[in-house]
Amino acid sequence: MGRTKNIKKSLGQAPGTIVYTGTKENTELFIDVFDYDKQFFEEKELDVIEDTFKYIDSAPITWININGLNHVDAIAKIGEYCRLHPLILEDIANTHQRPKLDEYEDYLFVVLKMLHYGSEEQLHIEHVSFVLGNGFVLSFQEADGDVFDPVRNRLRNTKGRIRANGADYLLYALMDAVVDNYFTLIEKVGDKIEALEDSLFENGSADDITYEIQHFKKEILKIRRAVSPLREVVSRIEKSDHKFISEKTQLYLRDLYDHIIQVSENIDIYREMIWGLMDIYLTTISNKMNEVMKVLTIIASIFIPLTFLAGIYGMNFENMPELRFRYGYFVLWGIMVTIFVGLIYYFKRKKWL
Amino acid sequence: MGRTKNIKKSLGQAPGTIVYTGTKENTELFIDVFDYDKQFFEEKELDVIEDTFKYIDSAPITWININGLNHVDAIAKIGEYCRLHPLILEDIANTHQRPKLDEYEDYLFVVLKMLHYGSEEQLHIEHVSFVLGNGFVLSFQEADGDVFDPVRNRLRNTKGRIRANGADYLLYALMDAVVDNYFTLIEKVGDKIEALEDSLFENGSADDITYEIQHFKKEILKIRRAVSPLREVVSRIEKSDHKFISEKTQLYLRDLYDHIIQVSENIDIYREMIWGLMDIYLTTISNKMNEVMKVLTIIASIFIPLTFLAGIYGMNFENMPELRFRYGYFVLWGIMVTIFVGLIYYFKRKKWL
Amino acid sequence: MGRTKNIKKSLGQAPGTIVYTGTKENTELFIDVFDYDKQFFEEKELDVIEDTFKYIDSAPITWININGLNHVDAIAKIGEYCRLHPLILEDIANTHQRPKLDEYEDYLFVVLKMLHYGSEEQLHIEHVSFVLGNGFVLSFQEADGDVFDPVRNRLRNTKGRIRANGADYLLYALMDAVVDNYFTLIEKVGDKIEALEDSLFENGSADDITYEIQHFKKEILKIRRAVSPLREVVSRIEKSDHKFISEKTQLYLRDLYDHIIQVSENIDIYREMIWGLMDIYLTTISNKMNEVMKVLTIIASIFIPLTFLAGIYGMNFENMPELRFRYGYFVLWGIMVTIFVGLIYYFKRKKWL
Amino acid sequence: MGRTKNIKKSLGQAPGTIVYTGTKENTELFIDVFDYDKQFFEEKELDVIEDTFKYIDSAPITWININGLNHVDAIAKIGEYCRLHPLILEDIANTHQRPKLDEYEDYLFVVLKMLHYGSEEQLHIEHVSFVLGNGFVLSFQEADGDVFDPVRNRLRNTKGRIRANGADYLLYALMDAVVDNYFTLIEKVGDKIEALEDSLFENGSADDITYEIQHFKKEILKIRRAVSPLREVVSRIEKSDHKFISEKTQLYLRDLYDHIIQVSENIDIYREMIWGLMDIYLTTISNKMNEVMKVLTIIASIFIPLTFLAGIYGMNFENMPELRFRYGYFVLWGIMVTIFVGLIYYFKRKKWL
Amino acid sequence: MGRTKNIKKSLGQAPGTIVYTGTKENTELFIDVFDYDKQFFEEKELDVIEDTFKYIDSAPITWININGLNHVDAIAKIGEYCRLHPLILEDIANTHQRPKLDEYEDYLFVVLKMLHYGSEEQLHIEHVSFVLGNGFVLSFQEADGDVFDPVRNRLRNTKGRIRANGADYLLYALMDAVVDNYFTLIEKVGDKIEALEDSLFENGSADDITYEIQHFKKEILKIRRAVSPLREVVSRIEKSDHKFISEKTQLYLRDLYDHIIQVSENIDIYREMIWGLMDIYLTTISNKMNEVMKVLTIIASIFIPLTFLAGIYGMNFENMPELRFRYGYFVLWGIMVTIFVGLIYYFKRKKWL
Repeated sequence: MGRTKNIKKSLGQAPGTIVYTGTKENTELFIDVFDYDKQFFEEKELDVIEDTFKYIDSAPITWININGLNHVDAIAKIGEYCRLHPLILEDIANTHQRPKLDEYEDYLFVVLKMLHYGSEEQLHIEHVSFVLGNGFVLSFQEADGDVFDPVRNRLRNTKGRIRANGADYLLYALMDAVVDNYFTLIEKVGDKIEALEDSLFENGSADDITYEIQHFKKEILKIRRAVSPLREVVSRIEKSDHKFISEKTQLYLRDLYDHIIQVSENIDIYREMIWGLMDIYLTTISNKMNEVMKVLTIIASIFIPLTFLAGIYGMNFENMPELRFRYGYFVLWGIMVTIFVGLIYYFKRKKWL
Repeated sequence: MGRTKNIKKSLGQAPGTIVYTGTKENTELFIDVFDYDKQFFEEKELDVIEDTFKYIDSAPITWININGLNHVDAIAKIGEYCRLHPLILEDIANTHQRPKLDEYEDYLFVVLKMLHYGSEEQLHIEHVSFVLGNGFVLSFQEADGDVFDPVRNRLRNTKGRIRANGADYLLYALMDAVVDNYFTLIEKVGDKIEALEDSLFENGSADDITYEIQHFKKEILKIRRAVSPLREVVSRIEKSDHKFISEKTQLYLRDLYDHIIQVSENIDIYREMIWGLMDIYLTTISNKMNEVMKVLTIIASIFIPLTFLAGIYGMNFENMPELRFRYGYFVLWGIMVTIFVGLIYYFKRKKWL
Repeated sequence: MGRTKNIKKSLGQAPGTIVYTGTKENTELFIDVFDYDKQFFEEKELDVIEDTFKYIDSAPITWININGLNHVDAIAKIGEYCRLHPLILEDIANTHQRPKLDEYEDYLFVVLKMLHYGSEEQLHIEHVSFVLGNGFVLSFQEADGDVFDPVRNRLRNTKGRIRANGADYLLYALMDAVVDNYFTLIEKVGDKIEALEDSLFENGSADDITYEIQHFKKEILKIRRAVSPLREVVSRIEKSDHKFISEKTQLYLRDLYDHIIQVSENIDIYREMIWGLMDIYLTTISNKMNEVMKVLTIIASIFIPLTFLAGIYGMNFENMPELRFRYGYFVLWGIMVTIFVGLIYYFKRKKWL
Repeated sequence: MGRTKNIKKSLGQAPGTIVYTGTKENTELFIDVFDYDKQFFEEKELDVIEDTFKYIDSAPITWININGLNHVDAIAKIGEYCRLHPLILEDIANTHQRPKLDEYEDYLFVVLKMLHYGSEEQLHIEHVSFVLGNGFVLSFQEADGDVFDPVRNRLRNTKGRIRANGADYLLYALMDAVVDNYFTLIEKVGDKIEALEDSLFENGSADDITYEIQHFKKEILKIRRAVSPLREVVSRIEKSDHKFISEKTQLYLRDLYDHIIQVSENIDIYREMIWGLMDIYLTTISNKMNEVMKVLTIIASIFIPLTFLAGIYGMNFENMPELRFRYGYFVLWGIMVTIFVGLIYYFKRKKWL
Repeated sequence: MGRTKNIKKSLGQAPGTIVYTGTKENTELFIDVFDYDKQFFEEKELDVIEDTFKYIDSAPITWININGLNHVDAIAKIGEYCRLHPLILEDIANTHQRPKLDEYEDYLFVVLKMLHYGSEEQLHIEHVSFVLGNGFVLSFQEADGDVFDPVRNRLRNTKGRIRANGADYLLYALMDAVVDNYFTLIEKVGDKIEALEDSLFENGSADDITYEIQHFKKEILKIRRAVSPLREVVSRIEKSDHKFISEKTQLYLRDLYDHIIQVSENIDIYREMIWGLMDIYLTTISNKMNEVMKVLTIIASIFIPLTFLAGIYGMNFENMPELRFRYGYFVLWGIMVTIFVGLIYYFKRKKWL
């Protein structure tokens, strides 16, 4: 879970109050705008939220990407301009909101989670939300750095299919970019789990392996929580008869749905593998203890009887005839070696050696 | 479970008999009334249940909050005045009733559970029920002390959205306050589980850890039992076409539903974590036993053979040539040290040291 | 499970053959009749099944309770008189029949299980079936002794709601009495499980604890098997549009459904607790073994090296200078005490002591 | 599973090819025919498949029972005569086909599994298929020996309900006979599991208990695989509006469905019990190891220190004052007995003795 | 999982881009064409994709089988000719695509997985996709070597049912060939698991058994992932009212669906068996440790007390009367033998020997 402090910072606030619940409180507001249709293309970076309004109204398709959820006033302004419901605005800023779809008459609202591993191999979850309106898409991100560059490049390219399609296709392309990124992530998780598994089979001595397994469990749970609600979201958009979703785009959404199922299946398989690892680890521990016990048993079983024999002839009875035999000492050695060899053979046959 | 004495005190009673099944039998009756609309606002504290009737009938929206479920006669009176079904009245006083929604033609009846940690870190579950009638909301609580203060403050504030909406919005706001509180609770549970987990990884010596894990299991089960029926309750209100639920409020209820799902997901994750803790603990025990066994095995494996050797030369055979060698004793010491060092090296290589 | 001999005594019989499959083969036939409406009330005990027929036909509502399923001829006679389907009659006498509802045009047939603990703390399951016809309810029980006394008392009371309602309400009241009794049972089970749990945490030495846990598992499975089909039964009656079920009674059936869900939830929680107990027990065993191992290791690790030292100076080499040192013996004691104290300190630091 | 060789012998064959996939390749063809209605009754044994055709066409109801699935040509001939679909014929001979229902316009096709324990307590699964046509039922079995004798006897009896009903009732009666037999089987399984459980609790020394548990697990899985698809089959026939299924028979099918549910429930309970047995066995092993460890620890903890003391006074230092004390030896014995008694007391208090 | 590198090579590509994601990058393009109807039959091998176009348009039914998904240009060309949707073409080349069905107005698109064991007992998963158009079927495979030879032989045979049916039947026949092959695979898996189980019960010493169990778990997961989506695929084709699927073929598809269920059930059973193996293995380890402990305990418990006795009489007290007894030594031997025999008897009675 990581420390889940601030699950809902807005506790006690009236519903619809816009409160940023993330940790990147000092992010600067950063807006970039793509205005395009089949022929036309314009790309701009803006600082002031009000400057985006004219693009929204203009005829070509517009994508406005806003970084910096801490700037709740900017969110409020564009929300007001587009007449978004207060609850939508709350959810845009509420980074704890799970993936969801809200259908309103004049727009669709989609919440996703962007997942990536940070520099220290730590899983980062970024809150992304989209508003699909009449001829425009708004996207809201917590901070700079996203997975939308392939989409940007395809937009810049006149011949791309994306330029020939509507805003609904743009929304699809952005969601597809997010899901595509899940595959990279999943692959990384898979590699790590297999590395852990290999290390378990090879030396079986990973000291903090319980810790790592528990850590992976949590990571898989986190990823699953981010991915699994998406199935319903995409399935609902695909089946929705909302006026903004064209039949053509629905085919692509169906494909996206397929990809999400594929990610989910992989997550489930990794889950089973991690659970299996714990079992393997327990077996490994038991096997090691068995080995330790065998060493102890072999040593003790051989030398305790021999020591007993030596003890016998260390006694000080006055009348101990063997002590006076000429080769008594050597005969005893012979007996001891015989016992020793016999026990070794016995343990060999028991496969303990 | 805690001691579940008195699961249903009314056993054998005719259905519809009002019996208080909780433990706070000496609570005083305490009634507070909010009467408001966009312009008008009045807040009153009353002692006599009959005094509330005029507010119910008056035009503005009325919220009557009644503390003290042990005052079954008061419940009966207001129930009769509002023509509530006897089964409803039974459920208001029956603190074992699970969360539910009952739709009647002239009112909606909702049962919730308020959860909070008491002073001794013990989970308390409070039974709360709401009746939404024509322009009024009745709320019934076991005792003083609730989570509705944010709602009260918003009511006192002329500009709040709550003042501009109907009684259905008030019902939503009260339910939202209850659910908001779940987040605080869940966060606390999460912190405690993680603290337990950390202590398990760090020293691994929590003596009563099995007890604590079992305790958390029960607590999670209790919370889940209080929260999970809520999903259906809210979903059904949202989809209901009851005359008292406006379309506008349904949007808010959808949002509330989202929050409940979020709480449920968190509960499920904590559940998995606690179950995982038991596994980790078992592994920890096994690892410790391994360590103990290793110490025993190393000590025994080194000294038992050496003792045997010493035993040999403690024998009293008359004919033991070694005993008479000049440096026999020192040679034996040499052999012993060699065995000692060899075994140490062997155990080092086996990674037991 | 108990010995499930005679799961279906009627094997090989034609369907519809009435065969009593229980064990109380010598029960005497015992019939009691309640004939009532708002004003009128009569209570009778009869010996001959034919005497009940006139009550069935008479105008007031009639409840005929028949004890003694072994009297298959009586069942056949009343079945013929009421024109019940042969399969119904088979199910009345077949004590292995699970709870169910059969809707026929002219009557409803309900099978329930009455659960109670016998004198030797053994779970008893009694087969009860009801036929709701036009203005009458037939109830069939294996033997004397049931949970319907509260209903009988309410019937005797002129003012009770039950007197003002129809036969469908009577059926509800009887089913409610059965379900009410589940709460008592569940509470008892809960108490026993918690007692077991406490004894596990306190001394952890319950010798036959595995046996008790397995015993509880079976008991819970039995109870669940008796209770869980009831959910569907009651839900189906409540939603049924059968001519004999009035809308008013449906409200009460909804309430009954709620109670059954509550019982089911409690059963599920107890189930999880019992499963958890097994885990706790395993951990307890492992912890004890750890403790045993520690004692062994401490004793052996301290005295084996010391014994070795003693063994050294018990050797009979002619040339062992230490033996001739004046204070050799005392110096050796000093060394031994040092080793002893050092090891004690070492084990203290390892928290083994 | 048993050796699942030949899961599908017809691999690579065109669909609809009739291939017998069982092991009883040398069974002789055996046909018996029952031709009956309320008044008329004829029972015949035939050798040639063509002789059955006239019965099929004749007015009274006909049951043709064919033993010997290896006679694929006979199956083909009667299939052609009754115009059965090639896939049906394939499924009749394919003993690996799971239970199913196929509805065609002119007939119903049902596949069941007959289960019984052989002489060596081994579970046998027999493939049975039924075709319900217009006024006739065909049944196909692998070999002689079935569970239909009660049905045959009822057919021979003029007064039986079966004679007064149509071919659909006959199909029901045959299926009921198969399901009735499941009860006998289930009872046997239950007895065996309880015997295993008892032996586990009593001496806990069943050497091959793991093997037996795994064996039961497989047996239960096999039975479940044979029984559980039947639920859907019967439920679908009951709800089917096929022209050959009368409303009257549907009531009986509902009853049959009930019985299958009952069998399924019992299977599930036995399953849980077997899984529980494995846990109990593990606990038993751990408990035994604990006991072994205790014996070792007690013996070692008592005698190792005493041996040390004896070792001390076996040393050969010249200056060891105690050795010369008059009662040194006896004092030492006193000390040793004290230590011995003290340790025994210590272990008694620890409940190890 | 195997190394899941390249889960989705096309990451960042526009949707609909054809990218081969498999590993057989150097496969040569290989096309074989079957053109047939009831009378006519032609079989050809082609090198150039454009040569296939005339067959597609020609009247008889055409099956074009294309090996070599790395030739994305050929896929693009035939896709363009048949007007396939770009997403279809992407999925044909994307070997990570899970089994699915896409229905378009003018064609059906089906993705399957062909499973077989390679020479080194390694599971291979081959990606196969089918396009059913108006009178033709296209099949796309990664490389040479498939399971379609039985279908080819039946096509070459004038009298086969396949020649008398349409392209939909051909699609069915190809899918059936793939599923038939699953049976072979499943049988092999079953044999391997049972071999592992037997080896576990017999010697219980498989060193890398944990590794093998984990390996099987993964293999079963892989197979399940390939097979289980097929259920929905076939069920949807069967229920589809697509113009290309005739009612006659639907009967065969229903049969195919049955087979897939059968495969799924077998997979589930093998899964449970593998999970069970891990439990058995753990029990085996525990049992072995028990055995080791017993040997140690018996040896130590017998000889430690005896050694103590020997130690006693090895002491050098001046006043030890026993030492001077004439038969002291022999009496002591008697005592020792008695102790020895007594302990052996004790361990025999405890069933440790």
